[in-house]
Amino acid sequence: MKQEDRERLDQLFTFFREIDKEKFIGRQTYLSDAKRKENDAEHAWHMAIMTLLLSEYANEKIDVLRTISMLLIHDLVEIDAGDTYAYDEEGKKTQAERERKAADRIYGLLPKEQGKKLYDLWLEFEARQTPEAKFARVMDNIQPMMLNAATEGKAWEEHEVKLSQILGRNEHTADGSKLLWEYAYESFIEPNMEAGRICDDREDEQSS
Amino acid sequence: MKQEDRERLDQLFTFFREIDKEKFIGRQTYLSDAKRKENDAEHAWHMAIMTLLLSEYANEKIDVLRTISMLLIHDLVEIDAGDTYAYDEEGKKTQAERERKAADRIYGLLPKEQGKKLYDLWLEFEARQTPEAKFARVMDNIQPMMLNAATEGKAWEEHEVKLSQILGRNEHTADGSKLLWEYAYESFIEPNMEAGRICDDREDEQSS
Repeated sequence: MKQEDRERLDQLFTFFREIDKEKFIGRQTYLSDAKRKENDAEHAWHMAIMTLLLSEYANEKIDVLRTISMLLIHDLVEIDAGDTYAYDEEGKKTQAERERKAADRIYGLLPKEQGKKLYDLWLEFEARQTPEAKFARVMDNIQPMMLNAATEGKAWEEHEVKLSQILGRNEHTADGSKLLWEYAYESFIEPNMEAGRICDDREDEQSS
Repeated sequence: MKQEDRERLDQLFTFFREIDKEKFIGRQTYLSDAKRKENDAEHAWHMAIMTLLLSEYANEKIDVLRTISMLLIHDLVEIDAGDTYAYDEEGKKTQAERERKAADRIYGLLPKEQGKKLYDLWLEFEARQTPEAKFARVMDNIQPMMLNAATEGKAWEEHEVKLSQILGRNEHTADGSKLLWEYAYESFIEPNMEAGRICDDREDEQSS
């Protein structure tokens, strides 16, 4: 093997060993057994398969490989920055800065052009502008919603999540897929609001 | 939402909830902390990213999306059939039949044309004939090898794995990528054989 091939592969495999740590980054979502919580790697895998089968529901035509790639790598920054729960308002204040530093270090392990390619994909995901990034956000919001509904709202109840918080987080979900947002609202949110597992705070807002 | 859209999405989401169970299917490979073992979903996620960055090392040009799709879904049959350890000779006798039944049931949850697409991808992986399937096998063999090496051969030692077993399992790895097989042999297998973590049974064979 040529020395340059070996060196390049050493860099790539250093990255592959490093990203193994994503399997230790816990999320707030319970798996379907309602016992163990999901980790970032499992979450990414699940969304990648969902994208493979749901891409036709995107509002705009998407490049499936690009979208899946984005979903597979977008949480790697959490190896350094940790998972910031969707409704953790304090954590979210420092999230961007913590994640940028993490991206510099982690994608910096790769050969330069490949590191840049993945870094750019992560930025694209964060910016939510392209059809792919918009659709990836749909997956990132709907996959945990599906699991929360499948576990009878366990994570929602534990965090006393309010409808207004869910709607805030999903403000742009319909931008990626109008139909999937409608489906998720009717199938996952509404029944759990009716069952009292999501706090329906609409009346509070109307009366204030 | 049209009734037919809702019914189709119900089928798709039934499948997405069902495949959550892949996260409970344990493998024999230790993660890089050498404490917890990997599950099938984590394994698939890891290989998908590796494919994204290593596809240029395939012997023949591969369709990256097709290869990643194959890797993401190829272990779903283990939800019913369980993981068969690479060196479990008894388990391997019934593996094919158990996995075929599992594929019928699990892919059968999907809308017909999508179920067929995934079933065919799984068959393609199993048949190891296309460039994509050959490369997917390289990933399926090298990813655990990398983790076994990163944990100082822990899983190899626990199972008293012999070099001849590894070479048997990797008989076709070079068919997918000559260079990656060479790299894996030199970086993961040789050093662990020298350190006595893989049983070097070459002399036994020569003297018998």
